[in-house]
Amino acid sequence: MTEPATDIERALGVDRGRLVSRLMALGEIGAIDGTTGCARLALTDEDRSGRDLVVTWMRDLGLDISIDGIGNVIATMPGFGATPPVMTGSHIDTVSTGGRYDGNLGVLGGLEVIETVIAARERGDLELARPLAVGFFTDEEGARFQPDMLGSLVYVGGMAIEDALLIEDSDGAVVGEELVRIGYAGPAPLPGPAPHAFVELHIEQGPVLEDEDITIGVVVGVQGISWTELTLNGQSCHAGTTPMRLRRDPGYVAARIATQVRELADEFGEPQVGTIGAVTLVPNLVNVVPSTATITVDLRNTDEATLQRAETKFREFVALAAEAEGVGVETRTLARFEPVDFDPRVIDIVETAANDLGLSSRRMPSGAGHDAQMFARVCPTAMIFTKSVNGISHNVTEFTEPADLEAGANVLLSTMLALARTEFV
Amino acid sequence: MTEPATDIERALGVDRGRLVSRLMALGEIGAIDGTTGCARLALTDEDRSGRDLVVTWMRDLGLDISIDGIGNVIATMPGFGATPPVMTGSHIDTVSTGGRYDGNLGVLGGLEVIETVIAARERGDLELARPLAVGFFTDEEGARFQPDMLGSLVYVGGMAIEDALLIEDSDGAVVGEELVRIGYAGPAPLPGPAPHAFVELHIEQGPVLEDEDITIGVVVGVQGISWTELTLNGQSCHAGTTPMRLRRDPGYVAARIATQVRELADEFGEPQVGTIGAVTLVPNLVNVVPSTATITVDLRNTDEATLQRAETKFREFVALAAEAEGVGVETRTLARFEPVDFDPRVIDIVETAANDLGLSSRRMPSGAGHDAQMFARVCPTAMIFTKSVNGISHNVTEFTEPADLEAGANVLLSTMLALARTEFV
Repeated sequence: MTEPATDIERALGVDRGRLVSRLMALGEIGAIDGTTGCARLALTDEDRSGRDLVVTWMRDLGLDISIDGIGNVIATMPGFGATPPVMTGSHIDTVSTGGRYDGNLGVLGGLEVIETVIAARERGDLELARPLAVGFFTDEEGARFQPDMLGSLVYVGGMAIEDALLIEDSDGAVVGEELVRIGYAGPAPLPGPAPHAFVELHIEQGPVLEDEDITIGVVVGVQGISWTELTLNGQSCHAGTTPMRLRRDPGYVAARIATQVRELADEFGEPQVGTIGAVTLVPNLVNVVPSTATITVDLRNTDEATLQRAETKFREFVALAAEAEGVGVETRTLARFEPVDFDPRVIDIVETAANDLGLSSRRMPSGAGHDAQMFARVCPTAMIFTKSVNGISHNVTEFTEPADLEAGANVLLSTMLALARTEFV
Repeated sequence: MTEPATDIERALGVDRGRLVSRLMALGEIGAIDGTTGCARLALTDEDRSGRDLVVTWMRDLGLDISIDGIGNVIATMPGFGATPPVMTGSHIDTVSTGGRYDGNLGVLGGLEVIETVIAARERGDLELARPLAVGFFTDEEGARFQPDMLGSLVYVGGMAIEDALLIEDSDGAVVGEELVRIGYAGPAPLPGPAPHAFVELHIEQGPVLEDEDITIGVVVGVQGISWTELTLNGQSCHAGTTPMRLRRDPGYVAARIATQVRELADEFGEPQVGTIGAVTLVPNLVNVVPSTATITVDLRNTDEATLQRAETKFREFVALAAEAEGVGVETRTLARFEPVDFDPRVIDIVETAANDLGLSSRRMPSGAGHDAQMFARVCPTAMIFTKSVNGISHNVTEFTEPADLEAGANVLLSTMLALARTEFV
């Protein structure tokens, strides 16, 4: 149960200017010339510089800093002994064409909340039953080392640290060696201790909040993800000299599958989504029927049973379309994650925090993966979304208005204080 | 009208072994390691070596050799004064992953015919009213310099030599300079003199003859070609976080167009063909709805009015599919050639030659472009097709059985002799 907020707690608010200023300063590291974009792939020199800057800010606040064997950094308010903290956090690695908000907001928003709370406590205004903590977790993007969410996965015991340290990038660089090289192979044990609760602030990376003019997304879980690569093998031939009846065109089969994926998503309705994001034809020439078409299919749903029905239906129409054209199919699963449900109690707390602040909100799933879904395995967890302008993310034009950053951080502040007052039984 | 063949003419036949031996010797120049394929792009060092070898063979037969300003080489039987020749020929340049038959057969088959006729005349067996000639024409493939069929286009006056000499390849090399460099910028005037008639022997480059177990294709014309590149501009977004109703996915529009192109070809029926050979999505990632899809569309028909109907219908469904998804369309015409009809009298002569030799034949259009279509502008013209195993061409596995090479060359022999006896009025 959750004790009610005091008037003093209700009067607190983060410093918008300080938050934006830190986001811009961190975004300068790995900045992409001529844009507001950012490239700080995990465990690169840029990542090291970004980490060093954030760690400096953590130290300036007098926080206890732990670094574990996969390079996760967690900063905790001192003076609470062994009491498990209310933890927030996210990541500061980016994709190669990333922006300044994805991940960074969750870390620097958490830092902003802690700085605000520390100041209130120094004024004597605020009692706190548990420490607050903020972390950044290694290689969330998976843009350099797969799988994504690597740091938080290892933190919660989902992968052995020995295995994680051996992962290589596409150039043969190894996680363990890169961690040593940048000075972030730390001594803290893994799996890490479970927090009291976990909540992550993140930009939506989608267009729903903007489309519906709602400020806060109360995230109820993460969609299940099914990624499949299909290699369709037909018969290459001359586009002018081969009658249609003698063709075995894998590009045509790929097109039929793409239209059927859309039909499937429309038929199942929201929250089902389906995407053909990558298509490669060989030889990809104007006057040659391709020999091979390789496509990727991304299916997502919040409900595991529905996602499985979608996968079954997908497999059925792939087989039919390929057979009708005399084209062979090789199927490779690229990723498969079941949906994650967040804790209803934490979801309620986030929703109440938004309401109490007078901010419009809606419950929604996350379509993307986040570190929070790993923490959901070990403690009560939920997430807070803020708007993304035009729904854009993983792009140098990623942007969220300062007012929305402030709103999200204030919901995080209220939520963390409420979680500190909450006993989960 | 055509005088009947003499018994002596009917008894003549080419030397299969000599023909195959020359094809293999020429195929060694530019041979692709570990394959029977060949790379002799126009006006490269390999092309020069191939040209030198064929010219040597032409000289060995005592033929008069003319080289014009675009590098076309024509070898004519001497002793006929200014009488226009019955001409055959094709090209010896290849695509970068070419075979040993495309083009080469038409040149070396013509040389084989002329050697056979010269031997018969030396025996005193054969009267001939006109000289025979064989040529090879520069850059038929268009793989290095666009447009394709460049040499024969300039020969018949379809492009001024001054313009042709300025054409650059993708590395900035210039036709005129490359011709001088390899020693094939000749003095013969352009446009060249019109032959009495022209007939070209070529592999089918398609599967129809093999599929129907027919030896000889009597080519009645060349399909009209319409090549279009479409650039579809939508809105890139996250495949997990963007509901289907908020998407503007150019990859989906590309897929709809590809399925509709197939439906169009099926609806129009043979000889209509339609192909999406090239598709490029940006950024082409599994979890990103693309911002842009670029596709090429290849439509062909032997009938200009029908081809225009196909183009109109195509434009209509492109516009509808794009508008339904809120996707913009940029259209670029990559190529547009009207169908070419060969001369009914030459077609009849080719068909009669096949019948008289006891070879099965069928009339058919050419789906690909050939030098003969340029000569059709200036003299009575047709073509002879032989089988391509599995319909494969522009590929290192391109192959035609020796028996089929021989059959084709014998039809060429009979046809050229009949054309020499024919007055076109």
